Amino acid sequence: MQSNKLKQLWAQGQPVLNGWCSIGNPFTAEIMAAQGYDSVTIDMQHGALDYSETLPMLQAMRASGATLMARVPWRDPGYVMKALDAGAMGIICPMINSRTEAEEFVSYMRYPPLGQRSFGPTRAVVAMPGYGADANDEVLALAMIETADGVKNLEEIAATPGLDGIYVGPADLTLGTQQGRLPPALDRQEPEMIELIQRIAAVCKANGIAACLHCGTAEYAAQAIGWGFNLTTVSGDSRLLAQAAATSVGAWRSLTGREGKTEEGGIY
Amino acid sequence: MQSNKLKQLWAQGQPVLNGWCSIGNPFTAEIMAAQGYDSVTIDMQHGALDYSETLPMLQAMRASGATLMARVPWRDPGYVMKALDAGAMGIICPMINSRTEAEEFVSYMRYPPLGQRSFGPTRAVVAMPGYGADANDEVLALAMIETADGVKNLEEIAATPGLDGIYVGPADLTLGTQQGRLPPALDRQEPEMIELIQRIAAVCKANGIAACLHCGTAEYAAQAIGWGFNLTTVSGDSRLLAQAAATSVGAWRSLTGREGKTEEGGIY
Amino acid sequence: MQSNKLKQLWAQGQPVLNGWCSIGNPFTAEIMAAQGYDSVTIDMQHGALDYSETLPMLQAMRASGATLMARVPWRDPGYVMKALDAGAMGIICPMINSRTEAEEFVSYMRYPPLGQRSFGPTRAVVAMPGYGADANDEVLALAMIETADGVKNLEEIAATPGLDGIYVGPADLTLGTQQGRLPPALDRQEPEMIELIQRIAAVCKANGIAACLHCGTAEYAAQAIGWGFNLTTVSGDSRLLAQAAATSVGAWRSLTGREGKTEEGGIY
Amino acid sequence: MQSNKLKQLWAQGQPVLNGWCSIGNPFTAEIMAAQGYDSVTIDMQHGALDYSETLPMLQAMRASGATLMARVPWRDPGYVMKALDAGAMGIICPMINSRTEAEEFVSYMRYPPLGQRSFGPTRAVVAMPGYGADANDEVLALAMIETADGVKNLEEIAATPGLDGIYVGPADLTLGTQQGRLPPALDRQEPEMIELIQRIAAVCKANGIAACLHCGTAEYAAQAIGWGFNLTTVSGDSRLLAQAAATSVGAWRSLTGREGKTEEGGIY
Amino acid sequence: MQSNKLKQLWAQGQPVLNGWCSIGNPFTAEIMAAQGYDSVTIDMQHGALDYSETLPMLQAMRASGATLMARVPWRDPGYVMKALDAGAMGIICPMINSRTEAEEFVSYMRYPPLGQRSFGPTRAVVAMPGYGADANDEVLALAMIETADGVKNLEEIAATPGLDGIYVGPADLTLGTQQGRLPPALDRQEPEMIELIQRIAAVCKANGIAACLHCGTAEYAAQAIGWGFNLTTVSGDSRLLAQAAATSVGAWRSLTGREGKTEEGGIY
Amino acid sequence: MQSNKLKQLWAQGQPVLNGWCSIGNPFTAEIMAAQGYDSVTIDMQHGALDYSETLPMLQAMRASGATLMARVPWRDPGYVMKALDAGAMGIICPMINSRTEAEEFVSYMRYPPLGQRSFGPTRAVVAMPGYGADANDEVLALAMIETADGVKNLEEIAATPGLDGIYVGPADLTLGTQQGRLPPALDRQEPEMIELIQRIAAVCKANGIAACLHCGTAEYAAQAIGWGFNLTTVSGDSRLLAQAAATSVGAWRSLTGREGKTEEGGIY
Repeated sequence: MQSNKLKQLWAQGQPVLNGWCSIGNPFTAEIMAAQGYDSVTIDMQHGALDYSETLPMLQAMRASGATLMARVPWRDPGYVMKALDAGAMGIICPMINSRTEAEEFVSYMRYPPLGQRSFGPTRAVVAMPGYGADANDEVLALAMIETADGVKNLEEIAATPGLDGIYVGPADLTLGTQQGRLPPALDRQEPEMIELIQRIAAVCKANGIAACLHCGTAEYAAQAIGWGFNLTTVSGDSRLLAQAAATSVGAWRSLTGREGKTEEGGIY
Repeated sequence: MQSNKLKQLWAQGQPVLNGWCSIGNPFTAEIMAAQGYDSVTIDMQHGALDYSETLPMLQAMRASGATLMARVPWRDPGYVMKALDAGAMGIICPMINSRTEAEEFVSYMRYPPLGQRSFGPTRAVVAMPGYGADANDEVLALAMIETADGVKNLEEIAATPGLDGIYVGPADLTLGTQQGRLPPALDRQEPEMIELIQRIAAVCKANGIAACLHCGTAEYAAQAIGWGFNLTTVSGDSRLLAQAAATSVGAWRSLTGREGKTEEGGIY
Repeated sequence: MQSNKLKQLWAQGQPVLNGWCSIGNPFTAEIMAAQGYDSVTIDMQHGALDYSETLPMLQAMRASGATLMARVPWRDPGYVMKALDAGAMGIICPMINSRTEAEEFVSYMRYPPLGQRSFGPTRAVVAMPGYGADANDEVLALAMIETADGVKNLEEIAATPGLDGIYVGPADLTLGTQQGRLPPALDRQEPEMIELIQRIAAVCKANGIAACLHCGTAEYAAQAIGWGFNLTTVSGDSRLLAQAAATSVGAWRSLTGREGKTEEGGIY
Repeated sequence: MQSNKLKQLWAQGQPVLNGWCSIGNPFTAEIMAAQGYDSVTIDMQHGALDYSETLPMLQAMRASGATLMARVPWRDPGYVMKALDAGAMGIICPMINSRTEAEEFVSYMRYPPLGQRSFGPTRAVVAMPGYGADANDEVLALAMIETADGVKNLEEIAATPGLDGIYVGPADLTLGTQQGRLPPALDRQEPEMIELIQRIAAVCKANGIAACLHCGTAEYAAQAIGWGFNLTTVSGDSRLLAQAAATSVGAWRSLTGREGKTEEGGIY
Repeated sequence: MQSNKLKQLWAQGQPVLNGWCSIGNPFTAEIMAAQGYDSVTIDMQHGALDYSETLPMLQAMRASGATLMARVPWRDPGYVMKALDAGAMGIICPMINSRTEAEEFVSYMRYPPLGQRSFGPTRAVVAMPGYGADANDEVLALAMIETADGVKNLEEIAATPGLDGIYVGPADLTLGTQQGRLPPALDRQEPEMIELIQRIAAVCKANGIAACLHCGTAEYAAQAIGWGFNLTTVSGDSRLLAQAAATSVGAWRSLTGREGKTEEGGIY
Repeated sequence: MQSNKLKQLWAQGQPVLNGWCSIGNPFTAEIMAAQGYDSVTIDMQHGALDYSETLPMLQAMRASGATLMARVPWRDPGYVMKALDAGAMGIICPMINSRTEAEEFVSYMRYPPLGQRSFGPTRAVVAMPGYGADANDEVLALAMIETADGVKNLEEIAATPGLDGIYVGPADLTLGTQQGRLPPALDRQEPEMIELIQRIAAVCKANGIAACLHCGTAEYAAQAIGWGFNLTTVSGDSRLLAQAAATSVGAWRSLTGREGKTEEGGIY
């Protein structure tokens, strides 16, 4: 089977840019995958989509050559294994709070004797001939640290054999560690949050695994790469669409002097 | 974000009427939502539908102004959080048998520090601008009591901090508590079942939470409101359609004297 | 292949009851088909559905044994032939205004040398083994008369070789012939409309073809059978569901004394 | 039924901003409709979608209050009438080349005696109670002029009774009138194209109908409003998404110094 | 409700042939069910499909009279109960490693007081009138043994009250018991694997439950029936299609002498 | 944009093998495209699929590199242009009976000034950057000859400027020219049919366009290549699947001695 391009880029010391799909549609997926992202992740957790949309999205993005991943809704073997069988080359797993949970997650990702993944790569082997023999080496297991427990157990989690990286969602990390003091958002500017985010990168580096960060802007992502992050996600399809459309509407209203309804809130 | 109309109606001491969707289709959902129900619940547990149908159904019913809820297939964080992110303003959670299970369910419904809901209201914030800050106050957590254990732990469950109400499904409650003595059905007439149903309403009232009952007819629902129930569901889309069509066929056959196939069974 | 039950019933002089599907969903279709209709028609013209929903609906109703038909969106060979290939045993074709249009419609329904239907009964032959040889004899061609021109050319249309019947939609027939004097609706009570409807039945009888009428109630349908109609449709899934739900809501509001939003309009 | 907001705005002399949906997904539709467009058009002609996607998109955008329209694939009564029954409040019809074609298009839009629209507003009446009586007054018929013949017959087309406006697609207008001299694109700068576009606006004004223009930027749209255009479309969902994502990728690559695949072509 | 044909055939001592669906499409399902399989199983675990596809597939196969089953993605009550409500007459449950897990699985399959299945056979009762009363007797609970733990606890698992059989997937069984010594595949020829497979059949027989084996060829299945297996699956839709198409391409290339791309890998 | 591989192969004098998709599913499409066909055609005419399935199928097959085509339901500009915008690199158009119809079909395929194709390659340009400028040169227009009129006008049709080839469906050709004397089927053996098929190949060659034949077996296709055919289709996905499954069932029944239901009919 094809080797995982993210692993190759990381072996060369290159940071990678990940795209994010929350819209459940193969045409938006194909558009996203055409813009030059190194990898694209389908968000099965918070995205407005499910397995039934994920499968044709993976197919629609196959020709792009980007590394395709999925974030699953929960640390549940059914979700993880179905996403892998559908052809995801990496899984981002939410809410890993302890070494045990990290080990369980990794075990869902690997065929025995390394793990307990069930064998049946129905669509994966169509897209990636030779899948069975090599899959254990190529699929990426990325754990999300988003709670106080997760942070407390960070070193143990990062040292889990077979774990390929840690993925940080700053909104949940803030909610999970700051007792409601700070609102959920990306691109944290608070010193305590920056320190925590930097610490995660450092622990990843010490364990030889990838540090990954969900960002809102390219500027923050570039900064994070300086802190040692190996993968950065910048925004996502639904937010990009909403912002681009709102900007277009605002420009028209400003140029024509015609007032109109303004959306009260934003998209996270 | 908009405030939850059910909470407002309950604050005024008004009983509410809930509609029920088991058909996985946005057009039937839009039809149901147009008939004047205070709330409409999409049944992801027993309904012939899944997340992929739930999302467009929530969208199709948004314009109606009814409070939209979902019953999830199981007390599973993946299901609960995805339904909330899709825009459900309340979750009915099956098979809550103990205080611990009730606490876990409530924790899936609230962002930290109140609970462990993961942040990413992708579609919810499009439908409800300002969602993030207010969601913890507005979404309803309704636990189903349907087993002997659930009944045994009723008082403890009802006192769970953050729980908004208890939803009773009489068919399961009968199966779960009567050792097979009574067949599953709605609108129980047996004294022991009525007593149990009334006791649940009383415990809810004592704990200041809503008592909710699944009914087959408006007559039974009106009676239950007299017992203290705050929300009643009356029938549902698939049963209403089947009964209306069967009645129409029966009328035609009776008027024309033409015999025909008669359906042997009913829809629950 | 199985023979068409409608043809058998008509040969025995029996009137038949047709069900009507406007909801694009295989579960509602299966529910409808279970209620004892002799035939069920999927409305591809005004129904909230297209070919992609029609196919699984035909599959879901196959086990019922009802004769399955489709009303196509327009007298267009692409629509007619795709519906037949999908397994429809009869086609109701809107807006037949002349003998030429009737002949064209019939030609789309029959394989050469009788007509110009293209060969490729992809799904039909799976559901009906032996389809190819017998299809010309079994599928029903029903033309709709709905305009002043259609009425003017009624006798010529009814005499079209290969036409199996005429289907009357009273709403369009009223709009098309009364110059806006009367509103569109089913179950006409005006003497001039009744006379016209009766005349259509008489012309069908004279030509040995089936007279079919779209009705709102079983009572009107029974009356129409007295006028000579061979097939009557009574209401349809979306209207049955809306009425049943509205009735249920009304009963609850009446019994509980709680006022609420009332839907302003009806479903046709 | 609700009155058409575009007609109200035009009656007040206000220009309107139209959004454009080429992605077949109810979530992207809901996002688009939330950005403050006066109207949103679903492109059934060139969009990556069909009727099966159009229906839930119309439902998802209903709550926004924007006037919802559809561009149909061709001047075909089946397409026009199905889109209206689905709830579109306006139809943009491609390739109107003569007065006869304009009259036929208008006839598909109106119930008799004004036209030949077939009666059966299955979903429209659910979304817009009272639909039947008022629809003839509220739905907008917008004809596209895109060929040399269309331009030659412009005055006759614009004078068609019941036509509400003319919609100009500059790419097709250029291809259709310039014998391949100019490439297809929006926002024409060539004097001969500007003159032609201005002439269409003037003819619309003289006939008391709306002039509508498809634009790529707010700047061009503002200019066109100065020329007398009453409705301008600015870009569309797929192009907005592609541009926003490409800009985000470009910013990241520029800031991080990491080269990567660049998309060779654009989206029209 | 109809009685389960597999139970009848087993009561007569007949082996049965099971078909396997990994393609999420009701037309391929209808084609498969038309070929004469005694039962057909929809693979919700490794198949390229989910609940949203399973429902119309069950509907499309209903008319065939085959016993319809589903393999669920994991031993999870939500999955098991939704598949039963959709109308599956049997559930194959992966990864049963202990008596406790077997008991839990069985409890999800039966209504109280026998188990904890939640009541609400929404679609099942439409397809099988009288479902509620008889379902506990008719639906089949088949547990998969695929790990070293499962094999160790084989006797205890096989003796679980209410369990109807054990289903063996040789690929996973090999991975799970041979420490990576042997590659995953069907139709094992190694003496140690044959011995293990035969032992499972013997334990099933001793417990009066069905022994079921997933096979790649009819030849191996016939051999397994000789070992005492009561149900054999032979290949599946995606593999059958891929092999048939590859054979057809190979034949053409061989006959025409035109070389071409050859697929590097196979489908498991 | 990428150049059309079929044109390249034909320029080299190579015959090509075309695959055929009648199943509306992106996974079966991906499986088919992986087997080494030079081109794959999605059958929108007789296939159990519509535009909503065609789009994700084209996306799923993009990575294969095969030339992707569509057969449209009818010679209708809406169908032809939507299939091209979706990314089809060739269109097979049924029922071309005259030079005028051939010219109209070709005009739908080309942008002005060569034809009247409307501009808006929404998805095509995502999959094929640079699409607009080159599409007129790369997309293939293949006309079907299937009636007595078509045969009568063969020379004139074949000489239509811009036509790229003629596609022969032997079942329709037989029905359309033999007055019901011969049953519809592929792989004709009758001398008069062979002569007619050979004559079509000769006329194509004389006009420098491709001769294409729908075949049931590789053997017949190889023979047809000897007659001068440039493209042959051999069987199709639904038939391959049905035959492979039936063969597997037959082998099992034969080896086990267990009789069972046998399908009465075949798939065309």
